[in-house]
Amino acid sequence: MSQKTDTQVVIGGRVLTLSGYETPEYQQRIATYINDMIEEYSKLEAYRIQPEDIKAVLLEVNIADDYFKAKKQIDLLNAELEERDKVIYDLKHDRVADQMKLDTLTKQVAELQNSLAESAKKIVQLETQLKGK
Amino acid sequence: MSQKTDTQVVIGGRVLTLSGYETPEYQQRIATYINDMIEEYSKLEAYRIQPEDIKAVLLEVNIADDYFKAKKQIDLLNAELEERDKVIYDLKHDRVADQMKLDTLTKQVAELQNSLAESAKKIVQLETQLKGK
Repeated sequence: MSQKTDTQVVIGGRVLTLSGYETPEYQQRIATYINDMIEEYSKLEAYRIQPEDIKAVLLEVNIADDYFKAKKQIDLLNAELEERDKVIYDLKHDRVADQMKLDTLTKQVAELQNSLAESAKKIVQLETQLKGK
Repeated sequence: MSQKTDTQVVIGGRVLTLSGYETPEYQQRIATYINDMIEEYSKLEAYRIQPEDIKAVLLEVNIADDYFKAKKQIDLLNAELEERDKVIYDLKHDRVADQMKLDTLTKQVAELQNSLAESAKKIVQLETQLKGK
C-alpha cells in the first residue's frame, strides 16, 4: 500500500495542498489538466466576463463532461469486450467440433487402410490359388 | 445533428444556463453528479472550513480525479480488447489449419474408398475365375 502524501499544486493561481494516496506526479497531472482547461476557457469572452464563482462552476461542469464522456467510452468498450468474448466462445466451440470431425476421419482412414490391406492379402491368395490350378 | 440548446441547472445553489449540443437530461445528470459530490464533501469538516474559492478548486480536483480514473480504466479495457483480438486471430488461424487437415483427410477417405471398391471388384473377378476352373 502506498503512503498518504501531501502534494502542493497550483491551480488557477491558487496554491493548494492535496492530501491522498496518489503519487505527487498524479496530483500534478490533475493540476496541469485543470490549468490547461482554465487557459483554454480564458480565451473565450463568454467565460471571462463571468464572476469567479460561476467560472468555477463552469469548470466543474466541463471537467464532469470529460468524465461522463469517458464513462460512456467505458460502456462502449465493455460492450465490445462482451462481443469479442462471444466470438471467442463461438470459435472455441467450432474448434471442438472440427476436432471431433478430425478424430472421426482419422479413425475412418485407419479402418479403410486396414480393410485395403486385408483385400490386398486376399487378392494375393486368390491369385496364388489361380496359378496353382 | 442535434440542435444547440440552453439548459438551466442548479449547481451548488447557483442557477446556471448550460449551452451546448447535449440533451437537457445529460446536463441535468452532470448537475446532479456535481451536487452529489458537494453534498458528500460538505459532510467533511476539512472541506467545510475552506473559503469558497478553495472549495471550488477542491471540487474540480475531485471531478478530475474521477475523470483520470475513468481514463485509466479506458486504457485497461483497450489493452484487454487488444488481447482478445490476438486470441481471436490465433483461433481463426487454428481453424484454417484444422480446415486444411479436414480437407486432406476427406480426400484421403474418398481415395481409400475408391481403392477398396476396386479391390472388391478384383476379388469378385478372381473368385469367379477360380469357380470357372
